[in-house]
Amino acid sequence: MNFEYNQKTKDLLVTLKAFMAEHIAPLDKEYVEWTSRNLWQVHPAMAGLKEKARAAGLWNLFLPEEYGEYSPGLTNLEYAPLAEEMGRYLWSPEVFNCNAPDTGNMEVLAKYGTPAQQQKWLAPLLAGEIRSAFLMTEPEVASSDATNICTSIVRDGDEYVVNGRKWWSTGAMNPDCKVYIVMGKTDPDAARHEQQSMILVPADTPGVRIVRPLDSFHTHDSPFGHAEIELKDVRVPLANIILGEGRGFEVAQGRLGPGRIHHCMRLIGASQRSLELMCARVKSRTAFGRELSKFSSIRQEVARSACEIEQARLLTLSAADKIDREGIKHAKELVSMIKIVAPMMAQTVIDRAIQAHGGMGVSSVDTPLAAFWAYARSVRLADGPDEVHMFQLGRNVIGR
Amino acid sequence: MNFEYNQKTKDLLVTLKAFMAEHIAPLDKEYVEWTSRNLWQVHPAMAGLKEKARAAGLWNLFLPEEYGEYSPGLTNLEYAPLAEEMGRYLWSPEVFNCNAPDTGNMEVLAKYGTPAQQQKWLAPLLAGEIRSAFLMTEPEVASSDATNICTSIVRDGDEYVVNGRKWWSTGAMNPDCKVYIVMGKTDPDAARHEQQSMILVPADTPGVRIVRPLDSFHTHDSPFGHAEIELKDVRVPLANIILGEGRGFEVAQGRLGPGRIHHCMRLIGASQRSLELMCARVKSRTAFGRELSKFSSIRQEVARSACEIEQARLLTLSAADKIDREGIKHAKELVSMIKIVAPMMAQTVIDRAIQAHGGMGVSSVDTPLAAFWAYARSVRLADGPDEVHMFQLGRNVIGR
Amino acid sequence: MNFEYNQKTKDLLVTLKAFMAEHIAPLDKEYVEWTSRNLWQVHPAMAGLKEKARAAGLWNLFLPEEYGEYSPGLTNLEYAPLAEEMGRYLWSPEVFNCNAPDTGNMEVLAKYGTPAQQQKWLAPLLAGEIRSAFLMTEPEVASSDATNICTSIVRDGDEYVVNGRKWWSTGAMNPDCKVYIVMGKTDPDAARHEQQSMILVPADTPGVRIVRPLDSFHTHDSPFGHAEIELKDVRVPLANIILGEGRGFEVAQGRLGPGRIHHCMRLIGASQRSLELMCARVKSRTAFGRELSKFSSIRQEVARSACEIEQARLLTLSAADKIDREGIKHAKELVSMIKIVAPMMAQTVIDRAIQAHGGMGVSSVDTPLAAFWAYARSVRLADGPDEVHMFQLGRNVIGR
Amino acid sequence: MNFEYNQKTKDLLVTLKAFMAEHIAPLDKEYVEWTSRNLWQVHPAMAGLKEKARAAGLWNLFLPEEYGEYSPGLTNLEYAPLAEEMGRYLWSPEVFNCNAPDTGNMEVLAKYGTPAQQQKWLAPLLAGEIRSAFLMTEPEVASSDATNICTSIVRDGDEYVVNGRKWWSTGAMNPDCKVYIVMGKTDPDAARHEQQSMILVPADTPGVRIVRPLDSFHTHDSPFGHAEIELKDVRVPLANIILGEGRGFEVAQGRLGPGRIHHCMRLIGASQRSLELMCARVKSRTAFGRELSKFSSIRQEVARSACEIEQARLLTLSAADKIDREGIKHAKELVSMIKIVAPMMAQTVIDRAIQAHGGMGVSSVDTPLAAFWAYARSVRLADGPDEVHMFQLGRNVIGR
Repeated sequence: MNFEYNQKTKDLLVTLKAFMAEHIAPLDKEYVEWTSRNLWQVHPAMAGLKEKARAAGLWNLFLPEEYGEYSPGLTNLEYAPLAEEMGRYLWSPEVFNCNAPDTGNMEVLAKYGTPAQQQKWLAPLLAGEIRSAFLMTEPEVASSDATNICTSIVRDGDEYVVNGRKWWSTGAMNPDCKVYIVMGKTDPDAARHEQQSMILVPADTPGVRIVRPLDSFHTHDSPFGHAEIELKDVRVPLANIILGEGRGFEVAQGRLGPGRIHHCMRLIGASQRSLELMCARVKSRTAFGRELSKFSSIRQEVARSACEIEQARLLTLSAADKIDREGIKHAKELVSMIKIVAPMMAQTVIDRAIQAHGGMGVSSVDTPLAAFWAYARSVRLADGPDEVHMFQLGRNVIGR
Repeated sequence: MNFEYNQKTKDLLVTLKAFMAEHIAPLDKEYVEWTSRNLWQVHPAMAGLKEKARAAGLWNLFLPEEYGEYSPGLTNLEYAPLAEEMGRYLWSPEVFNCNAPDTGNMEVLAKYGTPAQQQKWLAPLLAGEIRSAFLMTEPEVASSDATNICTSIVRDGDEYVVNGRKWWSTGAMNPDCKVYIVMGKTDPDAARHEQQSMILVPADTPGVRIVRPLDSFHTHDSPFGHAEIELKDVRVPLANIILGEGRGFEVAQGRLGPGRIHHCMRLIGASQRSLELMCARVKSRTAFGRELSKFSSIRQEVARSACEIEQARLLTLSAADKIDREGIKHAKELVSMIKIVAPMMAQTVIDRAIQAHGGMGVSSVDTPLAAFWAYARSVRLADGPDEVHMFQLGRNVIGR
Repeated sequence: MNFEYNQKTKDLLVTLKAFMAEHIAPLDKEYVEWTSRNLWQVHPAMAGLKEKARAAGLWNLFLPEEYGEYSPGLTNLEYAPLAEEMGRYLWSPEVFNCNAPDTGNMEVLAKYGTPAQQQKWLAPLLAGEIRSAFLMTEPEVASSDATNICTSIVRDGDEYVVNGRKWWSTGAMNPDCKVYIVMGKTDPDAARHEQQSMILVPADTPGVRIVRPLDSFHTHDSPFGHAEIELKDVRVPLANIILGEGRGFEVAQGRLGPGRIHHCMRLIGASQRSLELMCARVKSRTAFGRELSKFSSIRQEVARSACEIEQARLLTLSAADKIDREGIKHAKELVSMIKIVAPMMAQTVIDRAIQAHGGMGVSSVDTPLAAFWAYARSVRLADGPDEVHMFQLGRNVIGR
Repeated sequence: MNFEYNQKTKDLLVTLKAFMAEHIAPLDKEYVEWTSRNLWQVHPAMAGLKEKARAAGLWNLFLPEEYGEYSPGLTNLEYAPLAEEMGRYLWSPEVFNCNAPDTGNMEVLAKYGTPAQQQKWLAPLLAGEIRSAFLMTEPEVASSDATNICTSIVRDGDEYVVNGRKWWSTGAMNPDCKVYIVMGKTDPDAARHEQQSMILVPADTPGVRIVRPLDSFHTHDSPFGHAEIELKDVRVPLANIILGEGRGFEVAQGRLGPGRIHHCMRLIGASQRSLELMCARVKSRTAFGRELSKFSSIRQEVARSACEIEQARLLTLSAADKIDREGIKHAKELVSMIKIVAPMMAQTVIDRAIQAHGGMGVSSVDTPLAAFWAYARSVRLADGPDEVHMFQLGRNVIGR
């Protein structure tokens, strides 16, 4: 539990902050407007930004060092403050090849992929040349209980045949999205946690149909998007299975831990920036004869926000550190804790910042707050809703 | 404080519910999608629906009987449950000519307008032939303190010249919006509450420029919209002043009371429908081997929501009744109370319903919840933010 | 739902307020100190106060008119504001023979008692000559689920033999407490809600042993107290059963409805007085150069408290009215609602008042706030904990 | 920010836990009852326990190493988990000579005392032979703003004459309390933060009068107590001033930082034990056919409590670490944060545990929960109320 940033982290943070100031912040407003007007297209500046990030050594920072050659060698704890920094601009993580869901998918392939799978999909993902999606949630069942997932994966000769309907498949609207990791049932009669498998499905496989993009609180997260996808008699080679039949839960568990940390760190960055915007705002406005910053109620909200952000930051660092030192399995409770705490904290802190901005605060163009809010709100549902994490954490704490 | 619905209200409620079931509910999904794709256009079905509503006696129900011939003769208390019913579908109030901001503007003209003003603007508004906007909030000042409003209205011969910039001018994007009520300063040197005046500005007056539409949490509220408007050397006849110079606050107070009630009643309707959707949802899904409706945490959220809705409903009825019996001035504290209570209650109740729907809950198309939420959230800022109402109510309660 | 106080209520309220001002308020401090120093003794002034209250027509006001000759003829709705007034001084209800648990016990006897039971116990209770207790909760089981109650009531010849252990038997420490209503199982094999019965046990029956008084947050509620009681081979005549074997739930339901209303109204009175004390306090103190009443955070707390009190008041009146007009069965949901809402509201409002008083606020002698808080906190557990009411209300709302 | 317990801490924690299990836990119930029956007397076992603690090397652990010979040499960070452990039994800190307010007073004397002052008062305090009190808060002013403190300290020849009234003087009821540190004004005309001074007043000085003990939510904290004290023409030698005239604020700031950490750590211990009691309770009871531990609402409360405790713990360790590494001045914001966060967190967590215990939870004898709650609630007012910390922290965060 040594949360002090080490020299490596400090150096990278300096580089990253400089990069954000030089390349991201000035482009922000234009980027947000362009992507809202040009749905499902990649902003023309993105490729160049990626080049620059790579040149600056700010590439694939999320990938832990156990994944060898591709990894810049950061622990989760070292990566955490960098992810926080990226969270200050919602679209910036892709510039550093550090965006969900690709990070999680790359980790899966790096950890469980065969050399052939890695060569075909991991290499171009790590190079930022293609994008990917993760097809888990289904519209017909309470996917919060992953054992409910009912897409079928049936072996037929030297192929698997996939049938089902997925939604909230983040990234699948991106024109560069070339591959899906799909979760489905290979054996409905197996033990409860051995029915599911993960399988690779190229996006252009016949039978794959994008039904529609979904929005989250009217935001589209373009160019990534959240797709509803129909899979009808989709055939892929047997070699596309990940880790083996019935091991879907094992893969999911390995995938979700660090991914949750990343979401939480980004939310802390978004919250911190929201608080800073709020502070600037209340210094600039006067009501009833006093600067807003002098009202005790405003100060209480600022103080509460500062306390809540700092607590969530420490808890997330603590979870990252535990993963690094003892592995994801032993960090399970801490990961549940931050997944419960950080999105709700962010929702609250951002809401206060919105209120302090008056009408300006709800406009999607004039501040990032409305978009931050939509992000925080959706993470309360993504990667397991609050309720599931509390149900399991509560059970574990009681059982100790 | 007799909140029992009388026979007149009960009969109208039966008629209104039947109308909603026959004409509004079936069109809802199509209407929402059409307007999101055809910004700033009026849906082709609207005119016909208005005809039908008028024929059914469901027209201008909001207008209190003291306004004579135009009024269907309902008290605020009688109107309240009807407004709640309309709140179940966000776009439905216009069908009954009961939508903000036109209702408030009609009340202003009915109460304070000269016969000429009434003939020119009130008559077509009451007939639903034109729409209007209310230009109060300004981007450059904390408009929560209305004495900050700094648009200038300067007398020049037999005209007033208006200069300023407004935003969050709801309704001004509507192609049928023909007139604005503008608040601005006629005398910056007068006593603090006598500097401001209200003036009528036709939308096509030279110098009026729609800068842009604003969105609220990425929603556009089309066809009404929320405009940012520049007023540059805009000239209108002296006869366009409402009630007289320096009486802007008096008009604003008279305008805002019932308008706040209407917002709150609609929010109660939106909350009630959200709770019903939540109840239906938790009966239809199973996780960890049990129907969601059987989890005690879900039941607690349903129970809390039911308690909060019922309390807000009673408080709003109480405020409506007080306005009816003692006038808006004596009801000031109760009106502040509902303005503090109802939007926050709605935000909370709707948020719970969203969570119970999982991913479906955040999509703007699959349920009305995301749109309800954006509405509730913005009303916490509209017509005076929570903070101003609490500041004044707190002062009054302490001073008693 | 006509909540307007009628003339009868208004007149009684004037009389009651005058009585409180003349007889209760001046004695308050002395009474509280005396009873804390003289546990389980009746304050010497009590008998005289009762005489005066009776003479003033302020006697047994709680008893609904369907109970005939003894009743002053008030509906629950008419009684509600009087109970609120009594709630401003915790010990005052006894003065008017309107204190728990005697009111509930009197209602049971008036409603379900045989003429003999009524003559023996109801008459002296209504006269305020004796006190009673209600023995339901047990230390060994989760009594929140009343079917868990396991005291046995076994028929043996012409007697019932009672064995069990009860606690939180409010009133049983009072030297004037002469009779208990005991809930226990007559038939463990009957259907789930027909196993329990209510039986009258005179306090001096052999086998009854007061184990100890319990305190609630270090308060003793003397002279009433909350006793732990052992019942060992306690024998009473068959005629002591109330309504008949297996009808304990029926009696409990009838007993608890109005009792919950009374608690909630008193809590509203306690909350209202707390808010008034808070308002007086913040006008009298200055910090950082400003009167506390001018801090916006203080005003927000006052405003929120006023909103919450008024909402809880309206909801309770609504429940009282429903009981009057449609009977306790149809009012079940509203009664659950106020039981969920009012104690939590009171706890919150009183906590704010405590905070505004600084150190003075936590002292049990300098203000009534600490005692109010302990009362509010315990009612969240008494007569069914919050959780049970939410569990059942949630189920009902979902099931509609 | 290395929060990992080092070997020294781990070893001491093992020793301390063994001591608690052997000597404190078994005596707890008896001790609590004895002291509530024998107000203002020291329990006969205390002296022996102190001996044992000293022999075990568990003595004066709070005293940082910069205070030389007396100190066992622990940093604040090293001491924190030990203080947490002591917080599990409210009366245990005295056994280790680690109880408020003596710890703070000893720090003041160690840091600012003259050799003569140290010899006379610090030595016996460190030996646990006498006790002390800190007289700051006054009944007549809002002491939350310490500049309001108006006790006068006037120089008269070679003495100071002290006049004023203090309350909430913790520890002053203890028969072993021999000395007070009194805050008062030496120069009402000096700059705002240079008017106040601290002075040593022996408890037996003529003119000192204990007016009465105060209770906090009906608890007496015997034998320490919280006294109201009148100081009337109390004369002490000039040498009794601490650090010099006008330096009261400087001393107060130095005193309060670590003291707040200690309170917070103890509250975290109390919260942790409350959660453990809650977990045990919900495993032991059944309602509506299910063990309470299986209700999702119970699990949510347990999960939330676990999250909140862990966050407060990390934040407090972070503050302790900052004091150690950069001094109290630079840690000011973190100290404000924990003072805002920890007591409110404790109040919430303990309240949930109380609710889960049903009636048992509010009894002061059957569990420590009611006493824990009263402690947590009072700390929200002690050492600066929440509002003052939020006011200052908010100002600082905005000002960055």
